[in-house]
Amino acid sequence: MTTAIIIGAGNVATHLALAMYHSGVKILAIYARKQQSAEKLANKVDAKSFTDLSLLPGNASLNIIAISDSAIELVSNKLQTNGIVVHTSGITPMSVLAKHPRRGVFYPLQSFKVNVPVKFNEVPVLIEASDEEALNLLKKVANLISKQVVEVQTHERQMVHLAAVFANNFTNHLYAVAHDILQGHGLSFDMLKPLIAQTAANMQHQLPENVQTGPAARVDMDTIEMHLQLLREHLPYRQLYELISASIIEKQNNRK
Amino acid sequence: MTTAIIIGAGNVATHLALAMYHSGVKILAIYARKQQSAEKLANKVDAKSFTDLSLLPGNASLNIIAISDSAIELVSNKLQTNGIVVHTSGITPMSVLAKHPRRGVFYPLQSFKVNVPVKFNEVPVLIEASDEEALNLLKKVANLISKQVVEVQTHERQMVHLAAVFANNFTNHLYAVAHDILQGHGLSFDMLKPLIAQTAANMQHQLPENVQTGPAARVDMDTIEMHLQLLREHLPYRQLYELISASIIEKQNNRK
Repeated sequence: MTTAIIIGAGNVATHLALAMYHSGVKILAIYARKQQSAEKLANKVDAKSFTDLSLLPGNASLNIIAISDSAIELVSNKLQTNGIVVHTSGITPMSVLAKHPRRGVFYPLQSFKVNVPVKFNEVPVLIEASDEEALNLLKKVANLISKQVVEVQTHERQMVHLAAVFANNFTNHLYAVAHDILQGHGLSFDMLKPLIAQTAANMQHQLPENVQTGPAARVDMDTIEMHLQLLREHLPYRQLYELISASIIEKQNNRK
Repeated sequence: MTTAIIIGAGNVATHLALAMYHSGVKILAIYARKQQSAEKLANKVDAKSFTDLSLLPGNASLNIIAISDSAIELVSNKLQTNGIVVHTSGITPMSVLAKHPRRGVFYPLQSFKVNVPVKFNEVPVLIEASDEEALNLLKKVANLISKQVVEVQTHERQMVHLAAVFANNFTNHLYAVAHDILQGHGLSFDMLKPLIAQTAANMQHQLPENVQTGPAARVDMDTIEMHLQLLREHLPYRQLYELISASIIEKQNNRK
């Protein structure tokens, strides 16, 4: 049976621990700086809780560091184990785990919130490992919890992380801009919900460049001018509008 | 019984004609420049087809001009009718229909494609009218086909149209950028599909500013720098990344 230790009790740690626990992985321990956080998650996955790294059992086959990027190297250097050590970051190099001879990355590509349930089997897991044995263990665990497991190199993983920032964080910000524009005129965000749902639903079966619509896509300069005029008192949104429109027009030109 | 004429046979005209027809509105005629286009849609909604504006019946209670923005005024000026005349544009002023004493706007807020089915009752319809009688007819027809009918003024409608460009066209372009980044490294767009679906699904019950995540939202300059480094050979995407990140950081600061 695969045994694991989870270091961290935040968004990623919580969802990962739960998914692994429900897939039959034995979670030996949960570590968090705060006792309450460690205990809360440990109770959910039938594990022991720790707040001192040096007291963690050293015999787990897999040690998952699921904490903020900037703290990974420090925690890795303090960790004593014979098992494989991985982090869950999209952008951090595997080399920050250099202290451990068998190391890897286990990056679940989704935006997690502790209290929002996730169908983990639909979350792609990107894995990377220092050696064949580590890779095999990561593959085994990843396949237990997800139906989309992808082996990548560091640079590829970082590119996926970057692409995800465009598709998730930046997209969400455009929703926020739209909300702000509506709110400024006493209009309800509800009006945009069907459009937002449809735009994302298209991506399940179409490529984005094949369904691009709007004034920039048809180089409709009259409408673009009217929109810029509507944004004349909001320079930051106007700049966004101009740059994204120019980018759409450039992409259309490259396709011809 | 309400009678209508649809001028146009493109994406909006087709979905609107079908929705009205299935809601019991009698479609008297479909006009298009090409006989084949007019006939194809007319056959679907049990109407006559026309390619000459001057031959259209003048007795329909509602005449809907659903064509490209730049052609609305010209067509409106050629139209002979005693009924109410509306266009379906998000951005065009109602005043381009000035030839007709009873006029309005009937703007369905969705991105339509002829061959992609739409649940029209979930499409918000924004209406605007020159007078009470016209407004009542538009309300009646809009409520037949949609459960979200909103009465707006011209400036408000234009703001909704602008917000929709951010939430739909610009968002789709960010998906395209993400796809391009992945493709450039031989990585599959499939990896992003669950994330895209989740990001949009969040909007059905949350406000975008409450679920903003990512390096810019937490002002994680290390990750931002690494991403900019990854984009060093793609200046246009780098500019997009910088401007959108700056906009996210500004918004976060304004909330504090």
